[in-house]
Amino acid sequence: MSTLSLRERIADFHATYIRCIDQDALEQWPDFFEAQCHYSVTTAENDRAGLAAGLIWANNRNMLHDRVSALRHANVYERQSYRHILGLPFITQSTPEVVEVETPFMVVRIMHDGQTDLFVCGIYRDVFKPGSDTLKLTSRRVICDSNRIDTLLAVPL
Amino acid sequence: MSTLSLRERIADFHATYIRCIDQDALEQWPDFFEAQCHYSVTTAENDRAGLAAGLIWANNRNMLHDRVSALRHANVYERQSYRHILGLPFITQSTPEVVEVETPFMVVRIMHDGQTDLFVCGIYRDVFKPGSDTLKLTSRRVICDSNRIDTLLAVPL
Amino acid sequence: MSTLSLRERIADFHATYIRCIDQDALEQWPDFFEAQCHYSVTTAENDRAGLAAGLIWANNRNMLHDRVSALRHANVYERQSYRHILGLPFITQSTPEVVEVETPFMVVRIMHDGQTDLFVCGIYRDVFKPGSDTLKLTSRRVICDSNRIDTLLAVPL
Repeated sequence: MSTLSLRERIADFHATYIRCIDQDALEQWPDFFEAQCHYSVTTAENDRAGLAAGLIWANNRNMLHDRVSALRHANVYERQSYRHILGLPFITQSTPEVVEVETPFMVVRIMHDGQTDLFVCGIYRDVFKPGSDTLKLTSRRVICDSNRIDTLLAVPL
Repeated sequence: MSTLSLRERIADFHATYIRCIDQDALEQWPDFFEAQCHYSVTTAENDRAGLAAGLIWANNRNMLHDRVSALRHANVYERQSYRHILGLPFITQSTPEVVEVETPFMVVRIMHDGQTDLFVCGIYRDVFKPGSDTLKLTSRRVICDSNRIDTLLAVPL
Repeated sequence: MSTLSLRERIADFHATYIRCIDQDALEQWPDFFEAQCHYSVTTAENDRAGLAAGLIWANNRNMLHDRVSALRHANVYERQSYRHILGLPFITQSTPEVVEVETPFMVVRIMHDGQTDLFVCGIYRDVFKPGSDTLKLTSRRVICDSNRIDTLLAVPL
């Protein structure tokens, strides 16, 4: 049995997830997901229109590993780093079998020359199976507020 | 009796409030306030000078409904969306009758063409009557850090 | 004995610390540290290179008081204000003797003319001695993401 409240487990999950990405430890990123999982990145406009297709789409963890490998090998552009700041989670559903959470996020991008910009913001729509202290994602849909997403978007959100 | 701690209820309140606005469900926004309530938006400079007048001022919930109606009908400018990111609440007073909280906030504005900018930041100075799981605002004073607030400022903060 | 969880005490510490700075109550800032303490500000690049030297460096609380005095007297540039927004704390170590925490932060700077910019982001690497409800810093290392830190950087982070 978990000794932490659901709120605490969600906060811990988010804190660990964004630290992994912002530390550029991308090889560990797929471990935040179940083996059978959904991960997608889309825009609010596409999401409102009910379009399933997005900028990024994966339906199992191996595809996430592939994505990281591709990113590492294709990474010809200048070194960048990212800083995620998350807002307050809003639990939209909580049953013994499933927890659904919406969390606002903002990502700042820091270019090699020090240039620092607001890169993207939006919400995570997450589905977890509760039951253990360490949550894993069954599904994460990243809904970006802007339609003008940098085509270099490659880093996991 | 509430089964949630005061901190948890404040976090839930904030998460629900910003989700309402960022989803453009403005018609539900007045429901976060008591019928007799205060809502105002001002600048830090005006606040330091003790000026009561602000950019926006209301002293009951009907005025908030009126504001949303006006906003819906007068909305001739291009469609925008907003993303609120809140900081950590600081409880300045907590008695059985009243809870006062200060919470830093930041709002990002996303224009129709995708342009994404830091729109406004500042603090919420909130007063709640505690007692139930779902908090309602007796008073929210929004103190914006910048004196140069966009004159199109219309969305609730 | 503390009646608050460690998570709650860390959140309270952060909320109080950033409020002090953003309210420009800098004279109280050193009180967030133990008498014997470490405070430094450096860049992620220097930190990765193992360089101890940083932009700012202090190894006791008196040096922090001196820094505030210098800042007050040397403050010839235009009045600015700051707004800190913190992310989720990640506890990297927790024993009865020591607690180590990493927390992402973002600071917005508001110039006198109202110009509002993302000033700096990065992480706090904090060390606390637990034991009382009110935590104090044994050490805070501020690691800024960007190498291009404004040379006017003077406000505590």
